[in-house]
Amino acid sequence: MRYNQFAHLKMSLSTKIKELKEIHYLDHNSASVTDPTVLWLYLIKKAFPQAHSTAVQQQKIAGFLADTQTSLPAYAAKRTVNEQVFYNVALQLLGFEPGKDFSLADPFKTMRKSNLPYQKQVLSRDDVLSAWYDLLCTYTVNGQTLLDALAAQGYFKPFWGTISNPIFFNGKAQPVFDTHKLIREVVYVEADLDTDHDGQRDLLKTEIIRPAETAAGLKVPAVFTASPYNQGTNDDDGKKMMHCMNVPLEHKEPTDMTYTDIEYHSNNEQTIPAPRKVNHHTQTAEESFGREFSYTLNDYLLARGFAAVYSAGIGTLESDGLKTCGSPAETAAAVAVIEWLNGQRIAFTNKTEQVAITAWWCNNKIAMTGKSYLGTLATAAATTGVTGLKTIISEAAISSWYDYYRDGGLVVAPGGFPGEDADVLAMECFSRKKQPADYLKVKERFAQQLADITAGQDRASGNYNSFWDARNYLKNAAHIKADIIMVHGLNDWNVKLRNVYNLWQSLAQIPVTRKLILHQGQHIYINNMRSLDFNDMMNLWLSFKLYAVDNHAAEVLPDVLVQDNTAPETWNTFTDWIDPKYTVEKLRLRPHELVSAKLAPAAGAANFQDKLTTTDFEYYQKHLADWTKDLLMPEHSPLKHNRLLFRTAAMTQDTLIQGEPTVSMSVATNKDHGMLSFMLVDYGNAKRLGTSPTILGRKSLACGFQWREDDLVEFTLAPQTPWKIISKGHINLQNRLSNWQNDVLQPNCFYTVKTKLQPTFYHLPQGHHLGLVIYATDMGMTVRGNEDLAYSISLGASYLKLNFAEL
Amino acid sequence: MRYNQFAHLKMSLSTKIKELKEIHYLDHNSASVTDPTVLWLYLIKKAFPQAHSTAVQQQKIAGFLADTQTSLPAYAAKRTVNEQVFYNVALQLLGFEPGKDFSLADPFKTMRKSNLPYQKQVLSRDDVLSAWYDLLCTYTVNGQTLLDALAAQGYFKPFWGTISNPIFFNGKAQPVFDTHKLIREVVYVEADLDTDHDGQRDLLKTEIIRPAETAAGLKVPAVFTASPYNQGTNDDDGKKMMHCMNVPLEHKEPTDMTYTDIEYHSNNEQTIPAPRKVNHHTQTAEESFGREFSYTLNDYLLARGFAAVYSAGIGTLESDGLKTCGSPAETAAAVAVIEWLNGQRIAFTNKTEQVAITAWWCNNKIAMTGKSYLGTLATAAATTGVTGLKTIISEAAISSWYDYYRDGGLVVAPGGFPGEDADVLAMECFSRKKQPADYLKVKERFAQQLADITAGQDRASGNYNSFWDARNYLKNAAHIKADIIMVHGLNDWNVKLRNVYNLWQSLAQIPVTRKLILHQGQHIYINNMRSLDFNDMMNLWLSFKLYAVDNHAAEVLPDVLVQDNTAPETWNTFTDWIDPKYTVEKLRLRPHELVSAKLAPAAGAANFQDKLTTTDFEYYQKHLADWTKDLLMPEHSPLKHNRLLFRTAAMTQDTLIQGEPTVSMSVATNKDHGMLSFMLVDYGNAKRLGTSPTILGRKSLACGFQWREDDLVEFTLAPQTPWKIISKGHINLQNRLSNWQNDVLQPNCFYTVKTKLQPTFYHLPQGHHLGLVIYATDMGMTVRGNEDLAYSISLGASYLKLNFAEL
Repeated sequence: MRYNQFAHLKMSLSTKIKELKEIHYLDHNSASVTDPTVLWLYLIKKAFPQAHSTAVQQQKIAGFLADTQTSLPAYAAKRTVNEQVFYNVALQLLGFEPGKDFSLADPFKTMRKSNLPYQKQVLSRDDVLSAWYDLLCTYTVNGQTLLDALAAQGYFKPFWGTISNPIFFNGKAQPVFDTHKLIREVVYVEADLDTDHDGQRDLLKTEIIRPAETAAGLKVPAVFTASPYNQGTNDDDGKKMMHCMNVPLEHKEPTDMTYTDIEYHSNNEQTIPAPRKVNHHTQTAEESFGREFSYTLNDYLLARGFAAVYSAGIGTLESDGLKTCGSPAETAAAVAVIEWLNGQRIAFTNKTEQVAITAWWCNNKIAMTGKSYLGTLATAAATTGVTGLKTIISEAAISSWYDYYRDGGLVVAPGGFPGEDADVLAMECFSRKKQPADYLKVKERFAQQLADITAGQDRASGNYNSFWDARNYLKNAAHIKADIIMVHGLNDWNVKLRNVYNLWQSLAQIPVTRKLILHQGQHIYINNMRSLDFNDMMNLWLSFKLYAVDNHAAEVLPDVLVQDNTAPETWNTFTDWIDPKYTVEKLRLRPHELVSAKLAPAAGAANFQDKLTTTDFEYYQKHLADWTKDLLMPEHSPLKHNRLLFRTAAMTQDTLIQGEPTVSMSVATNKDHGMLSFMLVDYGNAKRLGTSPTILGRKSLACGFQWREDDLVEFTLAPQTPWKIISKGHINLQNRLSNWQNDVLQPNCFYTVKTKLQPTFYHLPQGHHLGLVIYATDMGMTVRGNEDLAYSISLGASYLKLNFAEL
Repeated sequence: MRYNQFAHLKMSLSTKIKELKEIHYLDHNSASVTDPTVLWLYLIKKAFPQAHSTAVQQQKIAGFLADTQTSLPAYAAKRTVNEQVFYNVALQLLGFEPGKDFSLADPFKTMRKSNLPYQKQVLSRDDVLSAWYDLLCTYTVNGQTLLDALAAQGYFKPFWGTISNPIFFNGKAQPVFDTHKLIREVVYVEADLDTDHDGQRDLLKTEIIRPAETAAGLKVPAVFTASPYNQGTNDDDGKKMMHCMNVPLEHKEPTDMTYTDIEYHSNNEQTIPAPRKVNHHTQTAEESFGREFSYTLNDYLLARGFAAVYSAGIGTLESDGLKTCGSPAETAAAVAVIEWLNGQRIAFTNKTEQVAITAWWCNNKIAMTGKSYLGTLATAAATTGVTGLKTIISEAAISSWYDYYRDGGLVVAPGGFPGEDADVLAMECFSRKKQPADYLKVKERFAQQLADITAGQDRASGNYNSFWDARNYLKNAAHIKADIIMVHGLNDWNVKLRNVYNLWQSLAQIPVTRKLILHQGQHIYINNMRSLDFNDMMNLWLSFKLYAVDNHAAEVLPDVLVQDNTAPETWNTFTDWIDPKYTVEKLRLRPHELVSAKLAPAAGAANFQDKLTTTDFEYYQKHLADWTKDLLMPEHSPLKHNRLLFRTAAMTQDTLIQGEPTVSMSVATNKDHGMLSFMLVDYGNAKRLGTSPTILGRKSLACGFQWREDDLVEFTLAPQTPWKIISKGHINLQNRLSNWQNDVLQPNCFYTVKTKLQPTFYHLPQGHHLGLVIYATDMGMTVRGNEDLAYSISLGASYLKLNFAEL
């Protein structure tokens, strides 16, 4: 067990004492205790909020050992304390078991190994107080601070109903709010949109959960999650619409296009109907709800004095409008909710009577949260520069929809969803369909809009066009005013890394704070990972941004935090995605080898074909893992004629590969169309982290006291594997110049094709080999024509370029 | 989607009206409405507890269609209602979508297909009331009654704080209690035990959760779950103790033993210390807790006026005593808690001051619940005949520990846990170890006790002895006074079917009610399965048993309910495990064939060897699924010399195989020791139910309003498989007469060995073949000596006997 706490602040003794008083850990009696042992015992007893009598407190502490032979009460009777007994008891409080997890003879050994902080000396009263404060901020075996663990036992229950303001400890908001009394209400925000063309502005159903204390005057920040999924999805309809992947790649007529030709310009001509007249004003909502589609980070914050706000946007159940996918109208819908929260827009208590209600309980400081489409809308909203939106925490977010559904002039499906496209997702999220009489009113208009999306996405060409340009948030990055925390899985093949990489790079020149967390997951949340204090970091950040707590979060939190891919529970900090002292490594192709560019270029070409036997073609489609295994298998692969494989010699030292690997290929094909796919691979027998985190404890992470819970997880080492994919890339041979222009492609002529693979941050261990696999059809991502296509790569004129950094 | 509701009671109109008033669905205004359409609309509007104004109610119902073109409000304006529009709207309320899930032109078609009840005519006011009542009892798409779905939206929130008694609707307790106000407290029950020999009676930590209304005088029943796991487990210690399975089977010296020689007699000589003196009495506990290790059925009941009680028993964290596994002392610990709940035993508020507290809030009616070890302790407690225990719901429970860890004179591990034994489980559950200073006091005594368990379980012989006889609850079945509901998975290879079968059979002659539910799961709970109203059935049963509600639960609930193994969502009722009209089918062995016993016996013998190559032996141990696949593969199996396989011709009709298949083998082996293992197999390419249920909706089953949640699951058809295991059996060739006597075994002599396979209830479809596979070492369950053992089966003298019943 190794813990990485980035949100644990170092405080002065006076601040520690002040804060211990604020959370009532020190009271009038104990604050005046001078004997260090007596004080120590007092502090320990307070760590059992479930004990309501002295006898039960005594009984609890009687179970602890101070050293190998002495119980805590017997030891304390000697009126002495030192750092060893202090941390012996501390580790037991944190859930470590003597004998099993640590030695009572040397608790520090385990604390160092587990990366837990400790104080070198604990002798005086001040030492005890100081060390105790830090202990409350230290992680228990279950990956929560001791104070959070005490909170889950009811430590803050006496605060319920007595507080008028949030309470901060070590720079972070504490769970002092009664989550049983949360107020849940629905309003309908009026957007500057009429996407269903019914002559009325679209009303957007918005769900609010806020502390009861807001009713007594407390103003709280709002953490808003825009989730098109949260009112339900049309899964069956979506499945039916999935596009067939077994279609041939088509030749594209050469064009002479510039970006200007396809640039999207918003259509400001459309007249928006006048706003609804306000008949009355009220502060009381008329609608509540039982259960929202929740997001754990928001749940965690709800106990700590933040409101959670959910809205699904246009075309979702009980909202107006038509669902689209990634369009500016969708962004405008999210922005409308922010504007309402910021007091700049009208919302109504119901959809018919025009009774206006403001977010009178909000302090006008807003954050956005969420993963995938949710994080995407947070990014989208941020690029409008909307006032009030102070920060977004965007997890696994799309920054340009072309980078989600396309790549290099090709249809490239998100991993795991072959056949999905913008139209399918629009259909899936159009939950307004679930209110049948309401749906009937817009059925035809929606069918038309869906047809327009299908046409606009243009699967036939795979090109970047106005449709995709309208869905490229990066274009508006310069407008961003909100600080951004980006979180992305280095193994996310659903929302691929280019999305976060491009946003990260776009922000370099913009005067906002940007932070980046890259983890080893696929498309997952990391709120509940034992080895990282993610929730605490976000708490520190949001306490800073939304409650103006002077906790130096912008400086304290690492700029770039990356989970290592070779060892569990290892998180390293960096100043940027790419180390300023990186070196560019150019590698040439030789038969089966990747060699230094300093060596002479090889002569000749290497060839492969795309077509599989019908049996193999059918089999691999249904067994993608087998396809990948066979494609990457160096020897005796059944796919050895369907790919080229080049490998370096064993690496002489551990190396970091950072950013976007680039390939430049001199390639010829036998037809007038073709594609190249690439995988960059770490070859080497090793135990690697599993693809999904292991569940360590079901429901063992508490978001508060008798409030929601999460499973505790961690990446653990899986059985040995021979390789791991580092990156992938895809390009249409007719999109050599750009993703919008079709280039000439003559059969059997060599062309230089240059493309960037998906960005990475990869720790390649010493002794491993770096491999480049070149192939055409990607069974899981591209169209699968199974055509009689043959490819030839001129070895001497092709290369791979990487950024290497030392560890 | 197909629903099976066994707890939906048919009621008279007058009862329906009375109950609709009791849950305030009908009030003074609406009860007097005579117009059926007006009443209908009124009832529909009440189905939106989240709507707090008429405008929002209107807005909700405006989303419904009455027919393909008419919204509900428009239709209702015509002042007419009929069964078609009634059920069109009803289905939408239940979450069915027109077009997708049903046709507005014929809602009844879907209702029949989904097995939802409906009323043929809905024209009059009484028709509307009657149909509405039943609609509230009908399952929504999410597998809960509409009333439970409304409760999850807050329907019963107005009842919070206003009720002094539980409210029953359709015979079942409703979630009218405020789960935010549940009282959680800890007491220490004093048992008539001193298992740690410290001269003081063992105190047993007991956690209670009860409705706040008990503080105002309400007496509630207690649902008690005795779980040795619920204070934590020593997983690492347990893993270290796992026994090595790669040991040879040993020759056993022949003995001449009768049951009397090994029968267990309780040691009544041990003097129990005197009870503690009571210093004071109180009604107020001194200790609370944040989160118990909960059980979903208990959570569901907590909202409905039942208390939940958890106790982990002797040797667990914060209790006294030493952990054992299945011993009478463990039973006595569970009984002690029941006796306290029933007012017949003392408990204290802490472990030192002797302040007594009674279960003054309990109506002295107690049920026990839980799966696996939990259900086992419920069974154990029931066999004592303890007063107050009215019923147990024992899921996947052990009825005799020999049937858990042994079979036929062999070590036979529970599926998935090779190497586990009684001593390992005792170590794992000895959570008292987690309180280090407390553990230190009993460390040596526990080590001694663990050594005694290891000796007693006697892995060397695998025989039934006094140790196991002490752990055979079936011996005391005659004492049972509690009614028993048994639930077991037909694919449970952890707690094997013999456990529930023997208990079921034992109860046949005992004057208690017995009910049996056999599902298609492995070792799982079925509370959250969409197709079955399990929670409702248990609610009906417990309302009857613990609140004396006159709901005829004993007659209404099926005696034997079995989930079909060929089709999803299919639950059939029977009167007994074995159909009274069963036929015994005896099948002879011929080379590769199972044939009718009417045909002449075959001559000769068939042979197989046990030994594998070292490579295969190593591989199969780590890849049990591959071993099973190879063992059962009829043609070209790499294990074809390691097993015999006999198959019937294709079945000419669908057949049920019930109860315990019996094999009788004439067998010789080349050594003085040996074992036979058997698998009964359904051969036939078919899509079968998956091994685990599919999650249909995360957290989508609500246990109440803003209370705990469960995932909604269902067994769905998995991809086609060629076979499925029906049953298994194992026998030591030296235990031909009994599990306690060692018989002579001369090498190369034929002996008749007869054994019962695990009981089953299997639907063998027409066209499939029944197979019997005979082998020796069971890679996943028996010891694996990989010895040079050869076996010979005399075909003509061997047979398989089955109970067949018609479907």
